[in-house]
Amino acid sequence: MSPQRRIDVVLDSVKRLLRIGATANLLNLLQKQHPADLAQVFGELAERDRQAAFNVLIERNSRLAMEALSELPPETGAMLLSARSAEEIAKFLQEIPSDDAVAIVEHLPEELRAAVLDLMRPKAAGAVENLLEYEEQTAGRIMNPNVFALSEDMTVGEAISAIQAARDVEMVFYLYVVDARRHLVGVVSLRRLLLVSPETPLKRIMTTDPISVRVDTDQEEVARQVASYNILAIPVVEESNKLVGIITVDDVIDVIKDEATEDIYRLAGIAGDERVFTPPAESLRKRFPWLLVNLATAFLASSVVAFFQGTINVWVGLAVFMPIVAGMGGNAATQTLTVIVRGMALGELTWANSRKALVKEILVGVFNGLAVGLVAALVAWAMLGDPGLGLLLSAALIVNLFVAGAAGTLIPLGLKALKFDPALASTVFITTLTDICGFATFLGLATLFLRMVRT
Amino acid sequence: MSPQRRIDVVLDSVKRLLRIGATANLLNLLQKQHPADLAQVFGELAERDRQAAFNVLIERNSRLAMEALSELPPETGAMLLSARSAEEIAKFLQEIPSDDAVAIVEHLPEELRAAVLDLMRPKAAGAVENLLEYEEQTAGRIMNPNVFALSEDMTVGEAISAIQAARDVEMVFYLYVVDARRHLVGVVSLRRLLLVSPETPLKRIMTTDPISVRVDTDQEEVARQVASYNILAIPVVEESNKLVGIITVDDVIDVIKDEATEDIYRLAGIAGDERVFTPPAESLRKRFPWLLVNLATAFLASSVVAFFQGTINVWVGLAVFMPIVAGMGGNAATQTLTVIVRGMALGELTWANSRKALVKEILVGVFNGLAVGLVAALVAWAMLGDPGLGLLLSAALIVNLFVAGAAGTLIPLGLKALKFDPALASTVFITTLTDICGFATFLGLATLFLRMVRT
Repeated sequence: MSPQRRIDVVLDSVKRLLRIGATANLLNLLQKQHPADLAQVFGELAERDRQAAFNVLIERNSRLAMEALSELPPETGAMLLSARSAEEIAKFLQEIPSDDAVAIVEHLPEELRAAVLDLMRPKAAGAVENLLEYEEQTAGRIMNPNVFALSEDMTVGEAISAIQAARDVEMVFYLYVVDARRHLVGVVSLRRLLLVSPETPLKRIMTTDPISVRVDTDQEEVARQVASYNILAIPVVEESNKLVGIITVDDVIDVIKDEATEDIYRLAGIAGDERVFTPPAESLRKRFPWLLVNLATAFLASSVVAFFQGTINVWVGLAVFMPIVAGMGGNAATQTLTVIVRGMALGELTWANSRKALVKEILVGVFNGLAVGLVAALVAWAMLGDPGLGLLLSAALIVNLFVAGAAGTLIPLGLKALKFDPALASTVFITTLTDICGFATFLGLATLFLRMVRT
Repeated sequence: MSPQRRIDVVLDSVKRLLRIGATANLLNLLQKQHPADLAQVFGELAERDRQAAFNVLIERNSRLAMEALSELPPETGAMLLSARSAEEIAKFLQEIPSDDAVAIVEHLPEELRAAVLDLMRPKAAGAVENLLEYEEQTAGRIMNPNVFALSEDMTVGEAISAIQAARDVEMVFYLYVVDARRHLVGVVSLRRLLLVSPETPLKRIMTTDPISVRVDTDQEEVARQVASYNILAIPVVEESNKLVGIITVDDVIDVIKDEATEDIYRLAGIAGDERVFTPPAESLRKRFPWLLVNLATAFLASSVVAFFQGTINVWVGLAVFMPIVAGMGGNAATQTLTVIVRGMALGELTWANSRKALVKEILVGVFNGLAVGLVAALVAWAMLGDPGLGLLLSAALIVNLFVAGAAGTLIPLGLKALKFDPALASTVFITTLTDICGFATFLGLATLFLRMVRT
């Protein structure tokens, strides 16, 4: 049975058991699931059912309920908890790593949030509050402060005993080695410990100068390092090189997904934090400003057309092919823009090779323009029986696809040089440019042509 | 010094040392780098310099050179090797895991590829050829067949000895346990081994029924499982549950990036395997068909306009605002489409909750249409001094944003139901629909209005 199929079966059973009120059976079923599967089941339940099922589980197995909750989007998690008292929430949040707890606390209603922070066990609340002090999207914000470290004076045997005694640390595949003031001095893998005799000093087998990130490193850079060095976790240090946390590869995967979503969204003109089930009023508020920007740029393209009203008035066939000029330019620009922005995100496009990319995109634009222009000219001629219109259309397409290639490369490069996110060069701006250049060529050449015919 | 800054310094030194021909110094510098950093340096060098630097390194440290090469895009790796004899390539490829070797062999010229497979050490070539037998984008294709497994009859002490003896296995954080016929029966973590006495039978401490995928599981599903269960590796089994490979989380990260790229590209109408430096002729060939499709759909929108030529002829102001109708519809549709397609990719949008998403998108579309329509009507009135045109424009925008919300949701859902990739519902199709509906409303209402005025 495929995992999705299995989850669908569980989902149906949960709904049925909720309907007939068979709480004991429901609890039994829920307890058998992996937290990640439970999270998916909760995610697919309607809101009321989700709350009911969660309530049943958390009363009897708060550990599992909270583990599942930490796999859900934090706003959903906060909503499931928000009917509880601050005391209960504080207690439940201790079941999960503090980086996950932070994300949920952040989404609680304001007063509840303060009360929960007040109430949490001094040590754990301290960790949560500390994490909240770091900037969003930095290593400090996503790290787990509960990092396991060994003293550089230990022997391998003492290290193994320390590991045996440690409980509740997120991961002990890499063992970080620190000096007396907790400065990060080395790393050793668990496997390496097994290959040497117990009396060996840790110092002798550790790798010195391990890869690390600082608390203020951008999470995208953290992800890039973990991915390119193929490591399973990266230690986080303060300015003085003091070890303060660890970021594991599962958190890095979440960052990579979020950053990809952000890029996809920016290219389309959507706020990075919108999701399918963001409430309609909020989505409206988030998308409207972008549509207004688009409206303003569309009026720019309109005013080019308005400038040539006289020409259209005597040659109405021009209006028929305006959508083709605009559409083709927009699509070619989107193609170029997407390749360029993604190439930057993946680290394939750099300053050193950007000129090569520009030459390529211009070449592709011009040759596509020639090919598409030829086809379009023939179809337009056949459609309205006017070879002049066909010629003008092909000229406009060639110019437009050249502009699409050049602007689709130069605008994101320019934004990057100005330290803006290149994905912000979303289709809206580029297509306005192709609209304006395309209309100006198409209608401008038509005006010249009419003048020549008249004289 | 930031990692990028450090790489830039190395890059400059490499260029300088190549220019002055200081081979020994160059080798010395290259040997000090991490393979991932080397890969980035190679990636940023011009083609001739890249080949020269690579040649220097591979003569003296083929291990490091090949590790760096396996971090580069496989087509680049194949290009760097393609001047070598088949014998040399075969020897070099033995330095890297067979899943990486497969990717490079795939990109070698046809004859060289056959010769290399012939020549590789029987065992290793067998592994590569086997991997090539699995479908692209399946677990079998991306797994590492060199998986470390323990017999279920071992004790913990024997297991630790086996780990100490093992060399060159990709990862031993999870130890998979197999029966006499190599069927996967359990998993135990390295840490768990340290917590019990050496005489304990493995059977007693292993977790039975471990999460696994089959050789034919789609790589996207593999990535989903590794990410949602927060595991560092997943075992790959054949139909009979025989353990044949392992996929580690670093490979999963590559899959997640590739799948995100594929979605971004499909939304923009680009082939998934195009990269910034795909040769121009190839990019041309890949993008042209998509532009032709777009041209065909643009002619559809044109023919709607052609149908109303008579109306535009007497009211040329209509032509001025046509770009606004088309542009706004296209942008609103892209917003909806992007949220829906990404929601599906992230698993947040399912069949069960799709109706809710549709209702939301229609609501957002209608209300955005009302707001944008109002603004547009006022601006249009002010621009051409014709209140009638403003009213028609707002009506067209309201209809168009409703269509954008409905079609932007229904088309990807429909494609998914028909087992197509929903991202294929790229902007081209949706914007054609909004163009047609927008023009028909705008110009159709104008025609009716003119008739009413005349009578």
